[in-house]
Amino acid sequence: MKVLVTGASGFLGSHLVPHLLEDGHQIACLLRASSVLNPELAALPRWTVGEDGSGFREALDSFRPEVVVHLAAHYVAEHGYEDIEPLVRSNVLFGAYLLEAMREVGCDALVYAGTSWQHYHNQEYCPANLYAATKQAFSTLADFYRDAAGLRLLELHLYDSYGEDDRRKKLMNMLKVAAESADPLAMSGGEQQIHLVHVDDLIRGFAMACKQIFDFKVGEHRIYCLPSTKAISLQGLVAEFNLANPEQPVYVLWGQRPYRQREVFQPWHGEKLPDWIPIVNIKDGLKKYRN
Amino acid sequence: MKVLVTGASGFLGSHLVPHLLEDGHQIACLLRASSVLNPELAALPRWTVGEDGSGFREALDSFRPEVVVHLAAHYVAEHGYEDIEPLVRSNVLFGAYLLEAMREVGCDALVYAGTSWQHYHNQEYCPANLYAATKQAFSTLADFYRDAAGLRLLELHLYDSYGEDDRRKKLMNMLKVAAESADPLAMSGGEQQIHLVHVDDLIRGFAMACKQIFDFKVGEHRIYCLPSTKAISLQGLVAEFNLANPEQPVYVLWGQRPYRQREVFQPWHGEKLPDWIPIVNIKDGLKKYRN
Repeated sequence: MKVLVTGASGFLGSHLVPHLLEDGHQIACLLRASSVLNPELAALPRWTVGEDGSGFREALDSFRPEVVVHLAAHYVAEHGYEDIEPLVRSNVLFGAYLLEAMREVGCDALVYAGTSWQHYHNQEYCPANLYAATKQAFSTLADFYRDAAGLRLLELHLYDSYGEDDRRKKLMNMLKVAAESADPLAMSGGEQQIHLVHVDDLIRGFAMACKQIFDFKVGEHRIYCLPSTKAISLQGLVAEFNLANPEQPVYVLWGQRPYRQREVFQPWHGEKLPDWIPIVNIKDGLKKYRN
Repeated sequence: MKVLVTGASGFLGSHLVPHLLEDGHQIACLLRASSVLNPELAALPRWTVGEDGSGFREALDSFRPEVVVHLAAHYVAEHGYEDIEPLVRSNVLFGAYLLEAMREVGCDALVYAGTSWQHYHNQEYCPANLYAATKQAFSTLADFYRDAAGLRLLELHLYDSYGEDDRRKKLMNMLKVAAESADPLAMSGGEQQIHLVHVDDLIRGFAMACKQIFDFKVGEHRIYCLPSTKAISLQGLVAEFNLANPEQPVYVLWGQRPYRQREVFQPWHGEKLPDWIPIVNIKDGLKKYRN
């Protein structure tokens, strides 16, 4: 299968592309000029896209993918005024160019990443932050192409993720840095329940989605999630983190930081991607992550 | 009441602002550098806004409006690739800056214009074109501010409009130009039913909305429409147009152009703004328009 991937330089994308290649698919990448691909992916066909919309049509027209996997995103947990433009540009405008280019060449299968934060208070749509709202805004535009051009849409709404080479400034790296330095880490109360999913499980889900979407009817739009087997509290997670490498524990000062303004305490209960289950359990995953 | 208006240089805005001033309200305008206000509005307080988000916070912070009326928009009935960026920038990004600036100063009442095209096939949301989808995308972002900051939202979804000084390249001006030149005008089959509403009726609706929104609960979001008393077919409208000035009829060649790809044949049945009814009937309105 020919798969065009956006966000291949990101955490998820840099794992997904080798996995799809191993499965025998042909892969091409859509990248910004500033993005850097892992060296082992440097030989793949790639197109550079610009803020003026350049590159999208050329890529779709030359590569003629059967499915597009759209992972490129700009992430901010709690935004400031200066984040608005990059959030709208990366998460809405970039995607709109992609949708239009897909329509022009008749590519009608799109698998893309959303976030469980689109479901604050377990609602169908209630964004926990502006990042989640811009993800939903993209879907709002995609619905035009779904109805007008018969686009098939498979959205995977993700929870927290981790993996060995995760360099994102998110929870797991904060814990790792604090453990290595032995400095105490000030955190919130830690009672929020989260789904923490290993990147190997996630990319298996995306690869399955790339196949499942061809069973969709023309113009069908489905939303699935990829949760862990069981949600865990942040306190429970830190306990597991320390069990995975008892010689280098992290010292957390619980309650020393406020919860986020719209902290999610119970994760959204979405519909799981059919036939997918997470395989990497948290003990094994954290051991691999820490050693 | 202090009302901040975006899009005051447009057709609707240039009528609404004098009407609100007559009602005794204090008005300020948010404008782009390229926008030109009618001369009689030149003395109003105004702030120039930029694509980088400049001007929004300054305006909200200085003027401290009780309600914002957001009319600024970029309109394209059937878009091309080059329209995507201006549609997203004007209809999504510009509005996102506005919402954030409102949150920062605690202004919590927003009245804004949507379109009946968000309801293709009379659905709650099905965009007839990308323009309508970008309008919905803005609402998707506004819902974050509604839930997170208690913003009250009153959306007025509009049908077709007209008025004496309408300079938009839309239906009524096409008819007028063709009638004045006596050149025949090629049109579609003309069987689509439309609501054509006089701008005087629309601005009365917006003025009423500015009052009604203060009865909303914190975080409430309502969508109303402002329809004509009775939908009319395009053929029927042209007949009325010619009756309004029989000495200068327009010669329409029906069926010489295709219908739009997603032509709306039956207008959306929305919930009318409470207590509002259109006053200008089509015969009187067209007579004023043509003489």
